[in-house]
Amino acid sequence: MTQIEIVEVSPRDGLQNEAQIVATADKVEMIRRAVAAGVKRIEVASFVDPRRVPQMADAEAVCAGVADVDAIKIGLVLNQRGAMRALATGVDELGAVVSASDGFGIANQGRSSDESVADAIAILGLAREHGRRAQVTISTAFGCPFEGEVAPERVAGIARRLAAAGPLEIALGDTIGVAAPGQIVKMMRAVQAAIPGMPIRCHFHDTRGTAVANAWAALTEGAATLDASIGGLGGCPFAPGASGNVATEDLLYALHRSGVETGVSLADVIEVDHWLGAIMARPLPAKVARVSMFPPAAH
Amino acid sequence: MTQIEIVEVSPRDGLQNEAQIVATADKVEMIRRAVAAGVKRIEVASFVDPRRVPQMADAEAVCAGVADVDAIKIGLVLNQRGAMRALATGVDELGAVVSASDGFGIANQGRSSDESVADAIAILGLAREHGRRAQVTISTAFGCPFEGEVAPERVAGIARRLAAAGPLEIALGDTIGVAAPGQIVKMMRAVQAAIPGMPIRCHFHDTRGTAVANAWAALTEGAATLDASIGGLGGCPFAPGASGNVATEDLLYALHRSGVETGVSLADVIEVDHWLGAIMARPLPAKVARVSMFPPAAH
Repeated sequence: MTQIEIVEVSPRDGLQNEAQIVATADKVEMIRRAVAAGVKRIEVASFVDPRRVPQMADAEAVCAGVADVDAIKIGLVLNQRGAMRALATGVDELGAVVSASDGFGIANQGRSSDESVADAIAILGLAREHGRRAQVTISTAFGCPFEGEVAPERVAGIARRLAAAGPLEIALGDTIGVAAPGQIVKMMRAVQAAIPGMPIRCHFHDTRGTAVANAWAALTEGAATLDASIGGLGGCPFAPGASGNVATEDLLYALHRSGVETGVSLADVIEVDHWLGAIMARPLPAKVARVSMFPPAAH
Repeated sequence: MTQIEIVEVSPRDGLQNEAQIVATADKVEMIRRAVAAGVKRIEVASFVDPRRVPQMADAEAVCAGVADVDAIKIGLVLNQRGAMRALATGVDELGAVVSASDGFGIANQGRSSDESVADAIAILGLAREHGRRAQVTISTAFGCPFEGEVAPERVAGIARRLAAAGPLEIALGDTIGVAAPGQIVKMMRAVQAAIPGMPIRCHFHDTRGTAVANAWAALTEGAATLDASIGGLGGCPFAPGASGNVATEDLLYALHRSGVETGVSLADVIEVDHWLGAIMARPLPAKVARVSMFPPAAH
């Protein structure tokens, strides 16, 4: 593997768990800066109940503010109501989410795993009717905070049902940051055997320090795309113990120095990290943005 | 790979960069607790100039305090004077260190890379004369803070010269935490081709968030042993930008959940982390010790 696609998720997954409400203008600026750094696909907002996720209450305004931005803009949606809201904006792609486990699905979204799959299939249909791209993330694919381990066979079965509805890709989400690299290898193989030819995206959290290792394992097993969040910002408000997404700059450092290209500038992302840290009024968890560049002239 | 050996380095590499001088009794207790958690090989001290590394001034006293501890106790030495000090104690194994680059060698130890190799070969001879185990670490193998990139061919050449002197293993040290997993793959292959059959240990720092990924890559390439430090404590006092070693608990979590056994109890190491955090009067950088165990009943 000599290149891999990055989906920047800081404006959505990065921010949704933050208590401090970020101004719409700052979210728009965050998206513009990420795209200026080379990001070509970015989660700009989620269209969810603003009483549950107040940080995303301005989803429509953020989308209006980035209408001219030249990148694939993703809106995350959980149900048909959210999909209709997203389709009324200029987002290029809908991202649906299913839960691999009933426990997390019911706690997070008040629906079983099967119900979430039905909702996702409906969302994929709506996107197709409206001529938009669409994909699905299988959340808690590597472990559920309530049920524990999730079997690769279960995830592969869900992936097969989703693939039949024609998403552009299926993502495996380590929503609560419990995955380990050997587990990634087994899961990737099980899912690829179930849905041969379907591009796979992976979404990792660094809650237990494994995110970059998991990303590397996913890449060696043929993942096409990796989610990342500038500064390592982010987490899931409904997942006990969840902390930040894998930091974009830490991931880019590991990839670029491994000879894997992303098309995103590490130096530019570090500048966005520093700008974002000022907005959030604290140093962000990413490590690469805190130390000297190596080798000094690189990137 | 279904098992790998862990060398615990917190009493030496973990502490040497700490400004707060840890009491000898606490160092002895740290070693006892690590061994009680299942560690079978541990760096207990370095025998270096106490004016340069005041934290290690009590090396002999620490060794006396752990004389009855049932584990392979390693003393790090840089030259023959250090080796003679170590051989006067009860350490089971001498760890010599060479520099892959002249820049780091001269700044850190006042000697070129070639001079450090000559010193290491002399140390291996002294250990053999005294019936002790001995090994060598090639420091800055993945990058030098002064010279930048270090070619795998250079490291492989140094490994070949060292292997001829009969160490029990050769270690590759990412002294300043700049390595990336793709680089590990290339380096491991180059070194193994140069010294077929010689066990390889790897030493990683998490300065740029890559340590667990590097460990995973090293394991997949056949590394026999990994260094780790409880709590992620540690760094090199002479390496600009260096921060902690890979945390033992983060590494154990990634390995055990990947089906790779270590013989060390993760739950026990987390308890040692909490005890050590109280000694150091701050939370340590390891992540796994800060969050809930997953799955809840594991380890």
